[in-house]
Amino acid sequence: MNDKHITLAYGSGGDKYHQLVKEVFVPAFANPYLQSLSDSALCSIDNKKIAMTTDSFVIKPLFFPGGDIGRVAVCGTVNDLAMSGARPLFLTTGMIIEAGFPVDELKTICRSMAAAAAEANVVIVAGDTKVVDKGECDGIFINTAGVGIFELPQELSPALVEPGDVIIASGEIGTHGMAVMTARHNLDFSPPIASDVAPLNSLVAKMLAVSGAVKLLRDPTRGGIASTLNEWADDIDMSIEIVENNVPISPTVHAACDLLGVDPFYSANEGKLLAIVDAGMAQEVLNVMQEHPLGEKSAIIGQVTEDKPRGVYARTSIGSKRIVMTINGEQLPRIC
Amino acid sequence: MNDKHITLAYGSGGDKYHQLVKEVFVPAFANPYLQSLSDSALCSIDNKKIAMTTDSFVIKPLFFPGGDIGRVAVCGTVNDLAMSGARPLFLTTGMIIEAGFPVDELKTICRSMAAAAAEANVVIVAGDTKVVDKGECDGIFINTAGVGIFELPQELSPALVEPGDVIIASGEIGTHGMAVMTARHNLDFSPPIASDVAPLNSLVAKMLAVSGAVKLLRDPTRGGIASTLNEWADDIDMSIEIVENNVPISPTVHAACDLLGVDPFYSANEGKLLAIVDAGMAQEVLNVMQEHPLGEKSAIIGQVTEDKPRGVYARTSIGSKRIVMTINGEQLPRIC
Repeated sequence: MNDKHITLAYGSGGDKYHQLVKEVFVPAFANPYLQSLSDSALCSIDNKKIAMTTDSFVIKPLFFPGGDIGRVAVCGTVNDLAMSGARPLFLTTGMIIEAGFPVDELKTICRSMAAAAAEANVVIVAGDTKVVDKGECDGIFINTAGVGIFELPQELSPALVEPGDVIIASGEIGTHGMAVMTARHNLDFSPPIASDVAPLNSLVAKMLAVSGAVKLLRDPTRGGIASTLNEWADDIDMSIEIVENNVPISPTVHAACDLLGVDPFYSANEGKLLAIVDAGMAQEVLNVMQEHPLGEKSAIIGQVTEDKPRGVYARTSIGSKRIVMTINGEQLPRIC
Repeated sequence: MNDKHITLAYGSGGDKYHQLVKEVFVPAFANPYLQSLSDSALCSIDNKKIAMTTDSFVIKPLFFPGGDIGRVAVCGTVNDLAMSGARPLFLTTGMIIEAGFPVDELKTICRSMAAAAAEANVVIVAGDTKVVDKGECDGIFINTAGVGIFELPQELSPALVEPGDVIIASGEIGTHGMAVMTARHNLDFSPPIASDVAPLNSLVAKMLAVSGAVKLLRDPTRGGIASTLNEWADDIDMSIEIVENNVPISPTVHAACDLLGVDPFYSANEGKLLAIVDAGMAQEVLNVMQEHPLGEKSAIIGQVTEDKPRGVYARTSIGSKRIVMTINGEQLPRIC
């Protein structure tokens, strides 16, 4: 880390972010939980294994088609817990509010959080509020932390992954990022792009019920599927090849990405997951996913390979292979 | 709540804050955990009872004599868990950083968090970082959430409190508030006022070992002991009388309070607790507290009474009785 000052790129979920985590946070807080650098930490309390996670949300604008900061704050943390294989149970929320913020908007956000919590079957058990002066924060920032219980016979782990395992996406990708960006820039699409923000824990429960099939799960939020796939390639020390044409993307998101010069692979999702699944059980997992309202458009998008050099590759529609790089700068600031 | 916009007073920990909680948060999130409005929520996972809490920290300045935002962020959450009678185990941290923030200061803050966590014997298991543009937040805001295990035979509860129970303070009050205020205004005191910020869980463990003695615990942070005592008077539906001369206050804090026109009863603490203790066991509890490095100056400062109207009263040095009001506006913004 040569920079002397934090820049927006350090919040991108990409290279610089991982540099920050590896060079500042992990050395300071050195412990086996953080070392895994996953979305949730699994901790033991006596004979119980619980998952813990935290996320701060700084989305701009606060309200957009398909959701608002409150819904994202609940779903984001529920999903982080679910991706570890845990069953989300309890959430806390810490709000930082700028003086002058409209009480009515705060009420709307809280109702939205409550509705999302009910949908996800989790309870918001504790909260904290700080108010700072005008100009000291931008509207409202919301942190949610969550606890879940882990009940699987073994942890989802990169160590389980083998060449030939398949990559499944739970539906059309890039939607949340484009919903927020088009709302931010007042671009009128018809139909408008609505964020996919949703709690994925019930979908995950169905997938995990296919015993031993699911090896890794991740919700590709900031940095999009490109970042998740690259992190996975690193973690498993193998390559991943995806077939571009098999990645579900809605025509509207495609159009918005073209307009804004954004690669949909890097656009954030808040209601989609990627899974690495045992090849022999992939069809069965795909079937249960497609039966779930949040997984109707699930598709096998690629597989784990032994290609060298290690990395993420995309097979294009004309049959060529391109490298899918990890994100470098800050493509979409304040997307979650 | 007649205000249409949030003002600084809503973050004070006083009347307006409680109005916000009771009229916005509790109705939205209605559930039995939040209803208790205590610092931590006790939740059950199968046969285990765990405590959960969250707190966001927006202190200005970030560094001050005796500590920094990192130390306060860890100790604050550890203390909230400890006040519920739980044993703190795991913390998460969410940081919101302004672009341009010095990497060296971030490293210092992380080291400080790690040191405080080690001191409190808790582990920081998960984290999240968001970066916002210059001017969109003020330096750095830190959220910590925590989980502890509750192992007492019964919960600490207002229902246990009886007239005659005594109020114990664990040492000199008002120190954190004055440390931050004098640092913020560049006032040079000699000796400088150092914040009392410290993890109180080991002190609490000693107190709880006196079986059945402790009925309620609270760390009087923003709003000071005046706010905690008033909240308690409400919760127990009895009155509290304190003896002004028995409340430990250091001469330097007294002087700073006089200079800044602040009542030390309203000045924040980050390493002190108040306890309501059974009268018959009060001396025993006081003894174990005074043997602990963080409780050397513990003192009995008052008692629970049946005085009407219900409220908090202070017996002054000339023998008169004054009402100790709850805080109304925002006396000390961004003190934690």
